Amino acid sequence: MKILIINGPSLNLLGTRETNIYGELSFEDYFDEIEQHFPEFEISCFQSNIEGEIIDKLHEADLEFNAIIVNAGAYTHTSVAIGDAIQAIDTPVVDVHISNVMAREDFRQVSYIAPYCVGSIIGFGLDSYYLALEYFRKFS
Amino acid sequence: MKILIINGPSLNLLGTRETNIYGELSFEDYFDEIEQHFPEFEISCFQSNIEGEIIDKLHEADLEFNAIIVNAGAYTHTSVAIGDAIQAIDTPVVDVHISNVMAREDFRQVSYIAPYCVGSIIGFGLDSYYLALEYFRKFS
Amino acid sequence: MKILIINGPSLNLLGTRETNIYGELSFEDYFDEIEQHFPEFEISCFQSNIEGEIIDKLHEADLEFNAIIVNAGAYTHTSVAIGDAIQAIDTPVVDVHISNVMAREDFRQVSYIAPYCVGSIIGFGLDSYYLALEYFRKFS
Amino acid sequence: MKILIINGPSLNLLGTRETNIYGELSFEDYFDEIEQHFPEFEISCFQSNIEGEIIDKLHEADLEFNAIIVNAGAYTHTSVAIGDAIQAIDTPVVDVHISNVMAREDFRQVSYIAPYCVGSIIGFGLDSYYLALEYFRKFS
Amino acid sequence: MKILIINGPSLNLLGTRETNIYGELSFEDYFDEIEQHFPEFEISCFQSNIEGEIIDKLHEADLEFNAIIVNAGAYTHTSVAIGDAIQAIDTPVVDVHISNVMAREDFRQVSYIAPYCVGSIIGFGLDSYYLALEYFRKFS
Amino acid sequence: MKILIINGPSLNLLGTRETNIYGELSFEDYFDEIEQHFPEFEISCFQSNIEGEIIDKLHEADLEFNAIIVNAGAYTHTSVAIGDAIQAIDTPVVDVHISNVMAREDFRQVSYIAPYCVGSIIGFGLDSYYLALEYFRKFS
Amino acid sequence: MKILIINGPSLNLLGTRETNIYGELSFEDYFDEIEQHFPEFEISCFQSNIEGEIIDKLHEADLEFNAIIVNAGAYTHTSVAIGDAIQAIDTPVVDVHISNVMAREDFRQVSYIAPYCVGSIIGFGLDSYYLALEYFRKFS
Amino acid sequence: MKILIINGPSLNLLGTRETNIYGELSFEDYFDEIEQHFPEFEISCFQSNIEGEIIDKLHEADLEFNAIIVNAGAYTHTSVAIGDAIQAIDTPVVDVHISNVMAREDFRQVSYIAPYCVGSIIGFGLDSYYLALEYFRKFS
Amino acid sequence: MKILIINGPSLNLLGTRETNIYGELSFEDYFDEIEQHFPEFEISCFQSNIEGEIIDKLHEADLEFNAIIVNAGAYTHTSVAIGDAIQAIDTPVVDVHISNVMAREDFRQVSYIAPYCVGSIIGFGLDSYYLALEYFRKFS
Amino acid sequence: MKILIINGPSLNLLGTRETNIYGELSFEDYFDEIEQHFPEFEISCFQSNIEGEIIDKLHEADLEFNAIIVNAGAYTHTSVAIGDAIQAIDTPVVDVHISNVMAREDFRQVSYIAPYCVGSIIGFGLDSYYLALEYFRKFS
Amino acid sequence: MKILIINGPSLNLLGTRETNIYGELSFEDYFDEIEQHFPEFEISCFQSNIEGEIIDKLHEADLEFNAIIVNAGAYTHTSVAIGDAIQAIDTPVVDVHISNVMAREDFRQVSYIAPYCVGSIIGFGLDSYYLALEYFRKFS
Amino acid sequence: MKILIINGPSLNLLGTRETNIYGELSFEDYFDEIEQHFPEFEISCFQSNIEGEIIDKLHEADLEFNAIIVNAGAYTHTSVAIGDAIQAIDTPVVDVHISNVMAREDFRQVSYIAPYCVGSIIGFGLDSYYLALEYFRKFS
Repeated sequence: MKILIINGPSLNLLGTRETNIYGELSFEDYFDEIEQHFPEFEISCFQSNIEGEIIDKLHEADLEFNAIIVNAGAYTHTSVAIGDAIQAIDTPVVDVHISNVMAREDFRQVSYIAPYCVGSIIGFGLDSYYLALEYFRKFS
Repeated sequence: MKILIINGPSLNLLGTRETNIYGELSFEDYFDEIEQHFPEFEISCFQSNIEGEIIDKLHEADLEFNAIIVNAGAYTHTSVAIGDAIQAIDTPVVDVHISNVMAREDFRQVSYIAPYCVGSIIGFGLDSYYLALEYFRKFS
Repeated sequence: MKILIINGPSLNLLGTRETNIYGELSFEDYFDEIEQHFPEFEISCFQSNIEGEIIDKLHEADLEFNAIIVNAGAYTHTSVAIGDAIQAIDTPVVDVHISNVMAREDFRQVSYIAPYCVGSIIGFGLDSYYLALEYFRKFS
Repeated sequence: MKILIINGPSLNLLGTRETNIYGELSFEDYFDEIEQHFPEFEISCFQSNIEGEIIDKLHEADLEFNAIIVNAGAYTHTSVAIGDAIQAIDTPVVDVHISNVMAREDFRQVSYIAPYCVGSIIGFGLDSYYLALEYFRKFS
Repeated sequence: MKILIINGPSLNLLGTRETNIYGELSFEDYFDEIEQHFPEFEISCFQSNIEGEIIDKLHEADLEFNAIIVNAGAYTHTSVAIGDAIQAIDTPVVDVHISNVMAREDFRQVSYIAPYCVGSIIGFGLDSYYLALEYFRKFS
Repeated sequence: MKILIINGPSLNLLGTRETNIYGELSFEDYFDEIEQHFPEFEISCFQSNIEGEIIDKLHEADLEFNAIIVNAGAYTHTSVAIGDAIQAIDTPVVDVHISNVMAREDFRQVSYIAPYCVGSIIGFGLDSYYLALEYFRKFS
Repeated sequence: MKILIINGPSLNLLGTRETNIYGELSFEDYFDEIEQHFPEFEISCFQSNIEGEIIDKLHEADLEFNAIIVNAGAYTHTSVAIGDAIQAIDTPVVDVHISNVMAREDFRQVSYIAPYCVGSIIGFGLDSYYLALEYFRKFS
Repeated sequence: MKILIINGPSLNLLGTRETNIYGELSFEDYFDEIEQHFPEFEISCFQSNIEGEIIDKLHEADLEFNAIIVNAGAYTHTSVAIGDAIQAIDTPVVDVHISNVMAREDFRQVSYIAPYCVGSIIGFGLDSYYLALEYFRKFS
Repeated sequence: MKILIINGPSLNLLGTRETNIYGELSFEDYFDEIEQHFPEFEISCFQSNIEGEIIDKLHEADLEFNAIIVNAGAYTHTSVAIGDAIQAIDTPVVDVHISNVMAREDFRQVSYIAPYCVGSIIGFGLDSYYLALEYFRKFS
Repeated sequence: MKILIINGPSLNLLGTRETNIYGELSFEDYFDEIEQHFPEFEISCFQSNIEGEIIDKLHEADLEFNAIIVNAGAYTHTSVAIGDAIQAIDTPVVDVHISNVMAREDFRQVSYIAPYCVGSIIGFGLDSYYLALEYFRKFS
Repeated sequence: MKILIINGPSLNLLGTRETNIYGELSFEDYFDEIEQHFPEFEISCFQSNIEGEIIDKLHEADLEFNAIIVNAGAYTHTSVAIGDAIQAIDTPVVDVHISNVMAREDFRQVSYIAPYCVGSIIGFGLDSYYLALEYFRKFS
Repeated sequence: MKILIINGPSLNLLGTRETNIYGELSFEDYFDEIEQHFPEFEISCFQSNIEGEIIDKLHEADLEFNAIIVNAGAYTHTSVAIGDAIQAIDTPVVDVHISNVMAREDFRQVSYIAPYCVGSIIGFGLDSYYLALEYFRKFS
């Protein structure tokens, strides 16, 4: 089973800035961990700060992957376009967030992406990705 | 590790009504499955249609359980009081939902509970409970 | 044909308080009148001030009654949970109100219950119940 | 007892369009039925698609009828002027709706008419008119 | 100088209904009074309950009258179309209201007409018309 | 193919008022032009300032015309009743506007009509009608 | 009959700034004109840019004047306190505005003062004061 | 004089959780203090996390107590039903809050209860109860 | 202990206007009563209708008084500046209101002052001041 | 005459996904059709999922093309930046949409682009492009 | 070049209260610094807690100063009247704020003053004044 | 000291379009001027119309520059993602705008960027950049 993780804006900074909030682990190191933990999966990772590149990747992935995990970061709350792209493709998408966005600013209470995903996993730190993978491992 | 699952209004109907949406499995049967799957946990389950009994249970559980999984159903969107009760206790709480509430009515886009929980797992059917348990198994 | 009338918060006070608004007839006495008027029906009545007990009763009634008349009082305007319970059951429900709620405060202009009922009868005093029964007598 | 039924915009189409929603009975045929059912009443019917003609009729009717049943259709949600006309006259008015407007679009949740009526009967199909007549028969 | 007074919905009832609010003088009798008081004016009066007839009259009047006084009644608060008609014509229009609409319901705080008029005279009873005429007598 | 053009409030003024905005061509003259340009069509035109007459015409037209072009003018933004009439009939309706309403006041950003039409053509002056006819010529 | 005119913030600038909007007449010169025109009145004028001084003056005036004309300028739209002061006193107050505030910014559509006045005269330039005086001359 | 104190959801936790906010005194201990301080009163205390039980108690108390002090906690901001119950009874009710709710979340700025009480005492910690009792001691 | 009472706009009218609402006692007479009742306090009183003078007084008082009681009247609902002044000083401030503002107009439901005060005492007539003083006597 | 068509996010998927909604024709194939139909035009097409690339293209096109047709897809409802770019250039732009966005979600009722375009053509499927081209052919 | 600095409510407290936020420098001392730094300017300073005195000063200053720097403090967010005064005068005004108001409460996100100023300088502490002076030194 | 200027969408057009608003100076020419004026700074400039490239640059700059000046243009009002990127980095950022955005459309009154910057300089034309540089020169 091929799985793609798509990370949105500023998630490339994980482990280097605001480590008090997001921890000191870079996504690359975390990626190694989950690859080992889910040997049955062929996991790829894509990060971009550009909304349209995330859309491009969702289109491409539809032909190549069995499942997608998206953490669209700040674009979650503003991007009708990413929501439309998820709605347009057939591959199941799970929406994940590192922080508990529901405990943050009002403008983060809106999601243009979640309604088109299978479901959302929010607030468990990097473990949100683990749980999304576990979902695909156990139930797909 | 002792874990309490608290189910809110109308979740006692699982498996008997609206089975096209919620499936034909009753929560009792699902409960048996997860007990077998997580033998390391001592799992209890409490269901009530009464907002205040859910609050009572949260207070009690704080003294007896290591972790709580709450699916407050419709009270999620109206109960400041359950949110306050979760905020008042020390036991970590995970918020779960069977359906993808983010794809439903506007009044279900508000959660008075999620901000005080560790995180939320939304939209994976009964598997949302599994993922919450997996979170406690793996990361607590 | 078995019919259940469910009355919500403070409707137990009928005939004793605010009689200038609600009249001097207690619901018990009114109940006797309608029982006589609709001898073809086996009518039961349930009153509770507790939101969750109203939900419990709706669940139970689904198995036992042919029709339900609900006056959820103030819960009409705040209870997503009662609305969900009505949506979950198969027995037809008619929503009734004694006073003309549409001529009252803004917060009473919202109904979380009416959308899931057959229809609503609002503002005819206790006669609202009569009209609901007449509906079931004539058209069911 | 003389009773006037006033029907608003597009209610002349009853029985010919959208019959899956509104049924195949024309209002004329339904009118014959209720005339037979309520022989004690002298019932008249007036339909207009013009807001101001409905107001004209309400003014006239105040001098000639003992009771009025109004289904203002779409004007219910936009016409302050019809609401004012009802408020200005002395004849009691009952507000009826064929469909359950409370289960429809947001803009149909507003009524400029109901606050000035005795009460509202909503969602019982053409039987809403029957129940309004029954109200006048039994309680006036 | 030719002046047209246009009265909107339910203003034909003046002096016959709600006399505690609007007084016992009919508009016809008041009209005689103001005709005598302003002999230098040729005053006409038009009343309609139909929004579109008021628009028709505004169009016609543009060719025939030097000034227009409009009391659009309830249409003041809902009719973009009357506002547009006033904006389209060249004859100066004064907006008058008998009651102090600013002290009434929220939905009467909106005016789609006043922005396109010379000005508004609100709340002086029938004297609002007198003041509008005085404005044209003294300042045009 | 028989086509009806329905023009709403104040569109009878075209070519005589506000010519800087709407041009100096009357709709009658423009109508001659489009009749010549689309000889394959039998085009009729109806204008009314009365909301209810537009509804009447829509009802009638459903039996007589193959296509309808509606410029409801200001009623576009306030008339739930015209929207309902379009929804009730089977003949395809195209919504046109002379000016770019999207660049005007906030209250013109709402359309109760467009959702029930095939589509909308907005802002091309009288050419909006030409484009609507071209749509029916080429694609119906 | 003693009449007080109260002018609010920046009305002292009349005739010196923004003369294209407000004209070149100072309020002092206009005051001379109206004094001559209404010889039966003893008219006083008070201007202040300080909200509280306007309130002080309203309190004092209640004991000394028969009528008050208030142009509270920008405070009209923000001062609950001036509205309360008008409500507290017995002397009748007329609200006047030089410009047509209803054709200006959204924040000027709110009046905390008008509901407590006899009525409002808006948009007739300095003639708004004349009309207010004429009202007191003719109808008090 | 018999006085009832009604405490709402999570107030049973006083002195045991969130002691940094609410202090280390349990309500039981505080109750002893105020009983001693107001020997002229016969004070009772009722706590429930269940909205409907608070309503039940208000109904009962109306027959038995001379005054009621209500701290409805989180239900203050969501319970139309408790507000209605207070409105329905004759016994005077004082609304108290331990914390300064006006300095907290937006959803706590709404009170469905205060409008039907004599008054509110907010933000003085447990001393809010003392002040309410003092009010009854001194002024009833 | 030195205590300052600051009264805002129109509170100088107490006992002379609207006595049906506010009673016939002037604040001066009430002041004598509370001075006698709290001999341990040196109480001063300041009243102004001018927002900025209330701010000036708050600044001065910070150096001279041990406690402040503020009834900012209508400024409570509009004055960010008074709220800021209270936040800037160290002396504890209690917010009092004579009438139950929570049962009045919507615009009185906002307080820019309460969040920066120790607490609020609302709706007990002049006794609200007594309770505030009692708070300082008993608990400071 | 040189014309540029700019297509926004996910429009590259036309003919391959959601074909029940958008049809089975790819934009490339449709492009061939319209090129043949409008031989007098030199038409180019640009598609990007990246908001900023659409802005880049609008800037470039201003120097090279005589007319632009923009279907900004989901960016229509969120991109102030594309709206600004259209406002900044001189080349006339027509806004087109394949689906009837006015019949879809609330967030699609906002357009940051339409106010700066000549006009909008909405809801005619791919024929919306044809009509825009026809507009340029016939009226430019 | 003569420059006036106008400081609004509570800015007289600078350097004495909330020094952790606003620093320990009084405005007087800061004023000495900037006078030395800009010897080419004749700088005056005016502070008032009274909205109307700030308006008075703006009127006077228009005749005497070449430029004005306004920090209206809390009045920035509520004073339509100060905004109007700035609009009425010819002298250029720059709006400054010590703290970053955009990072504070929602009610501080509104400015009734900035739209009528040359521009705004926000959040640089007392250096905001320096930058405003530098603007006048370099670019006027 | 190394300083980076980041310019957002359409700012590459400066000096070539809408020169009546933005002036005839290109940013390149202006850049030469400020380089000469601030010889102590090593200033770089980056412009992109792509939201994500601005985020990329902010991330990079954090490692290389001592200060950043951002004019995010239209993205200021829509980009949660750029705001997050500024919050994530340590280099101080000043927010500048050429035009007075506070005097423009409502949707430009929101800034997702300003709260995370040191401060904002708005409305001084290209001189806004000068003032930002002067801030870093004088106070960093």
